[in-house]
Amino acid sequence: MSVIESLLSIDKNLHVSVYLQITNGIIGHIRRGTLKPESALPSSRVLAKALNVHRKTVVAAYDELYAQSWIDVYPRKGIFVAKNLPDITPKPLSESKEASGFPVSTFFDVNDQRVPFPNLFKPGAERNLIFNDGFPDTRLAPVELLVREYRRFGNYRFTSKYLMYGSEQGSENLRNELARFLSDTRGLQVSPDDILITKGVQMAIYLVAQILLSKNDVVIAADPGYPGANEVFEQAGAQLELVPVDEYGIDLNAVEAICKKKKVKLLYVIPHHHRPTTITLSSERRMQLLELAMKYRFAIIEDDYDYDFHYSSSPILPLASADYYGSVIYVGSFCKTIAPGIRIGFAVAPQNLMVQLKRLRRMIDRQGEQLLEEAMAKLLKNGDIGRHLKKANKIYHERRDVLCQLLNEQLSNHVSFKIPDGGFAIWMKYLNNLNAASVSEKAAEMGLSLSNGSDYFYNNDNHSFIRLGFASLNLKELEEGVGILNKAVNKLI
Amino acid sequence: MSVIESLLSIDKNLHVSVYLQITNGIIGHIRRGTLKPESALPSSRVLAKALNVHRKTVVAAYDELYAQSWIDVYPRKGIFVAKNLPDITPKPLSESKEASGFPVSTFFDVNDQRVPFPNLFKPGAERNLIFNDGFPDTRLAPVELLVREYRRFGNYRFTSKYLMYGSEQGSENLRNELARFLSDTRGLQVSPDDILITKGVQMAIYLVAQILLSKNDVVIAADPGYPGANEVFEQAGAQLELVPVDEYGIDLNAVEAICKKKKVKLLYVIPHHHRPTTITLSSERRMQLLELAMKYRFAIIEDDYDYDFHYSSSPILPLASADYYGSVIYVGSFCKTIAPGIRIGFAVAPQNLMVQLKRLRRMIDRQGEQLLEEAMAKLLKNGDIGRHLKKANKIYHERRDVLCQLLNEQLSNHVSFKIPDGGFAIWMKYLNNLNAASVSEKAAEMGLSLSNGSDYFYNNDNHSFIRLGFASLNLKELEEGVGILNKAVNKLI
Repeated sequence: MSVIESLLSIDKNLHVSVYLQITNGIIGHIRRGTLKPESALPSSRVLAKALNVHRKTVVAAYDELYAQSWIDVYPRKGIFVAKNLPDITPKPLSESKEASGFPVSTFFDVNDQRVPFPNLFKPGAERNLIFNDGFPDTRLAPVELLVREYRRFGNYRFTSKYLMYGSEQGSENLRNELARFLSDTRGLQVSPDDILITKGVQMAIYLVAQILLSKNDVVIAADPGYPGANEVFEQAGAQLELVPVDEYGIDLNAVEAICKKKKVKLLYVIPHHHRPTTITLSSERRMQLLELAMKYRFAIIEDDYDYDFHYSSSPILPLASADYYGSVIYVGSFCKTIAPGIRIGFAVAPQNLMVQLKRLRRMIDRQGEQLLEEAMAKLLKNGDIGRHLKKANKIYHERRDVLCQLLNEQLSNHVSFKIPDGGFAIWMKYLNNLNAASVSEKAAEMGLSLSNGSDYFYNNDNHSFIRLGFASLNLKELEEGVGILNKAVNKLI
Repeated sequence: MSVIESLLSIDKNLHVSVYLQITNGIIGHIRRGTLKPESALPSSRVLAKALNVHRKTVVAAYDELYAQSWIDVYPRKGIFVAKNLPDITPKPLSESKEASGFPVSTFFDVNDQRVPFPNLFKPGAERNLIFNDGFPDTRLAPVELLVREYRRFGNYRFTSKYLMYGSEQGSENLRNELARFLSDTRGLQVSPDDILITKGVQMAIYLVAQILLSKNDVVIAADPGYPGANEVFEQAGAQLELVPVDEYGIDLNAVEAICKKKKVKLLYVIPHHHRPTTITLSSERRMQLLELAMKYRFAIIEDDYDYDFHYSSSPILPLASADYYGSVIYVGSFCKTIAPGIRIGFAVAPQNLMVQLKRLRRMIDRQGEQLLEEAMAKLLKNGDIGRHLKKANKIYHERRDVLCQLLNEQLSNHVSFKIPDGGFAIWMKYLNNLNAASVSEKAAEMGLSLSNGSDYFYNNDNHSFIRLGFASLNLKELEEGVGILNKAVNKLI
C-alpha cells in the first residue's frame, strides 16, 4: 500500500461527495508537503480498490486535480504530483487573493460571505496621488517622540510591571492623563474610572454596540454616514433607522418621528465634522438631542473623533459635558493625533455600562498594549501631544485653505462646497450632472485616486458627492491633485 | 433663580422617581464641577417651587445627597456642597471600586451584572511572593530586543508606511516569518494568507467563536479547563458540554458519547500542557480526535499556546499538521515568549473562515499594532526569538526541576503531582483532606499568594487541586515559597 492510500480517509455518509473528499485530501497532502512535487500517485484502479470506492470516483478526483494543476498525467508513465504547484509558495498580500489559496473547508457553515470592505479607490495610473477620505499626514506623525518613550522601556526595573497582565480598562497613568486632557480641552469632568482605553474609536463602538444592543433593537444613524459604525450595529443584530443631515447636523424632527413610532435604543452621532458631510452639530441641536434622549430614553454614542482639529472657530463642548443623566457614551481617539496606525482610543461611559464593557474587552483581547499606553500617557503629561496638535492644526488649516482656494480658482463652475470648520476633508458636490464614480474613473487614468463615493450613502452609489481629504497632501501635492481633477472633470463635460 | 434650578430638568413621566432625578442631577453637576465644593444650594422650599415639585421630594433628595456625603447641612446657615467630596479625586485602580464612583445610568438596560474575573489570589501579608497560574518571568523578557527594533522606527522613510491603515490580517512581514516559523517548529505547511495575526490567543478564540457559533450550538471543552475560553463560548450563546481529562488528555469516549446524542459544532482542546492539568494529548488521541471530527463534522480549536516550552521530551506535532479536511483552527501566541503584556497571537484557519475572521477583526479594532508586528517580524527573521526560547527553556527547565525536588523533599507526605513535560506550572493535589482554599488562606497570612483553586473546575470550588506556576520565580524564591507552603500545610494538618 502506498503512502497516499493510508493517508486518505473517506466517509460515504458525508454531505461532501466522495470524489471531492479524495480531491481535497490529496491537495491537503500536497500543500503540507507529505506528497512532494513529482512523486508518483497510485493508478485510479489501485487507489479505488484501496479506498473501497468505484474507480470512476477516483478518475473524477484525478480529473479535478488535473484541472486545478495539482497533478500531471503522463500516458503510459502514470500520474504524478505536478512539478510546478499552483499556489503553494507564499504570495504577496492583495485584495484579489481571497478566492484562491487554502482549500475551503467544508466543516464551517459560514453563510455570510459578504466582504464589506470594497476598495473604493481605484489606484492612479502613474503616480500614487490620493485624495483620501480624510486622514492625517503620517509624514507629520510625532514618531520620534514615541520612539523616545520606547527607549525608556529598555530599563527593566521601570518596564517590568508593564510586561505582565494589566487592567482590561487600560493603563491607569493614561486614564489619569486623559481625564485631565478631557477636562482641559472639552470641559468633561470625568474620573479615570469612567474611562476605558480602546484600540481606536472602532473598538469603543464595537464594545458599546455588543453590550447595549439585542436583535432587532432600533439604532438611529445619519445618512450619509459612517459605514464603519453602521456595520457594527448591524452585526449586533440591530435595525438601522436613517435620518438626514442638514446644515446644523442631524435632523432631529426625523429622529423624533422615529421615536414616536418605535422604541429607539441607541443613536449614533458624530458631533464635529460629521463624516462624510463635515457638518458640526449646533449647540441648540445638542441640547435638543439630549432632551429627546431623556424623553424617549435612548442612549447616545457621541463619536467626537476629530474634536482636536479646528481651524476657523472654537469647537462646541461635547453632548457628554451637558449630560447629567448618563445617556451619553463619549468616544474619541488619538489615531488622528499620532497616526491612524497607532491605535489608541477611549470610551467614557456610566459605571454600570463600564463594568460590562470591561468584561467584554477582557474576553476579546484581554487588554491593550501597555507599553504604547504608558508612552502615550507620558506624551500627554509632558505636553508633547498639546504642542503637536498646535503644530498640526496650523499646517492642516493652511492645507484646507489652499485646497478650497485651488478649487475655487479652477473648478468653481463644476463643483460646490462649504469650507469645513475643522477635520481633514471637504464635502463637495459635482455640478453639471457629473457623477462621483465617473470622475473617479477618469481621474485614475490620469494618476489621481479619488473615492468613487460608494460608501457615503447607505443605499445609493450613484450620486454627485465626494469627500476630498486635504490633510495628508502638502501644498505642491494639493496643486497637482486639483490640476488633475480639473482635467478629468473637463474631459467629462 | 440660582444656577442649580436652571440646570435641573425633571420629567415626571419617567420610571425614575423625581427625587432620584434631582439627586442624580445634583451629583452630576458636582462631579462635573458646575457646582463647586462649599457652594450654597437653594433651600428645599425654593428649589421645590422652582422645579414645580412637592417640597418633600426635594427634602428626600437632599437626605439622599447627605447620606452619600455629597452635601453638608448646617442648621440655620443652609445647605452646601460638601467640602470633602466622596469620590471625585482620581483613585488608584482596584477591583473593589466598580461598585462606587460615577452614578449608575438608568438609561442602560444592562442586565448581565456578572463580574467573571474574581481575584483568585489573596495577596500575601508581608511579602509579595506568588505562585501564579503559570506565567513566564518578565524579568527574562527580551525587552531590549524589542526596544532595539523600535529605535529603528525613528527613521521616517522606513516607518511611514506602518503608520497608515494596514491589513486587518496583520503585518505581511510577520505572516511571512510566522509561516516559516510554524513550518520549522511544528511541521505546519501554511501560507501567509492562512494566518491572521491577533492580540494573543484570547482574540483568536473570540473571533472564531463569534463567527462559528450561534445560539445553543454545542461546544465541547475539558473540565477542569480554561475559563477564559469557556466564557467566550458562552458569550457567543453556545451550550458547553464538559468532558474529563485523563493521563493521555481529554476523554474521547466521552466526546463520542456527546456526539451520538447531540450535534456538536466545536471542540476546544489545549494539546500541550493542558491548563490546568499540564497533560499533553497523546499522538494516538490526536489521530482519533481528527477521526471523530471527520465522522461527526465538528470543528476544533487547537490552542497550542505553550508549544514552544518543552523540557523533558519533544513536543508532538499539532493536530493541524495532520488535518487534511480543514477541521482544525490552530491558535497560538507569543505572549509567553516575550511577555504576557506584549500581545501577539495568531490563528491559522481555512480560507472561507479567514474571510469572515478578517471581516470581524476589522469591525472590532480595525487592525493590530503595526509597529509591534513589524518589530516581531524582525525578531523572528534574525533568529532572536529562537535564541531567546533556547535560553528561557533552559532556565524554566531548571526551575521546574527545583520546584519538584523541593516539594518532594518537604511536602511529599502532603501533596502528589506528576512532573510536567513543559509549560509553566505543575498540577498538584493536596493529600490528607487538605483543601486548596484553606491552604491559600493560610499561606496568605504567612506572605505567600497561592490560587484558591476556584477557577479550575466549571462547577466545583471546593477541591484539593492547585496549579503552581514555577516559571516566574527564581531558585531562591522557589525555595522561600515552598518553605512557606510547607509551614502553611503543617499548620492545617
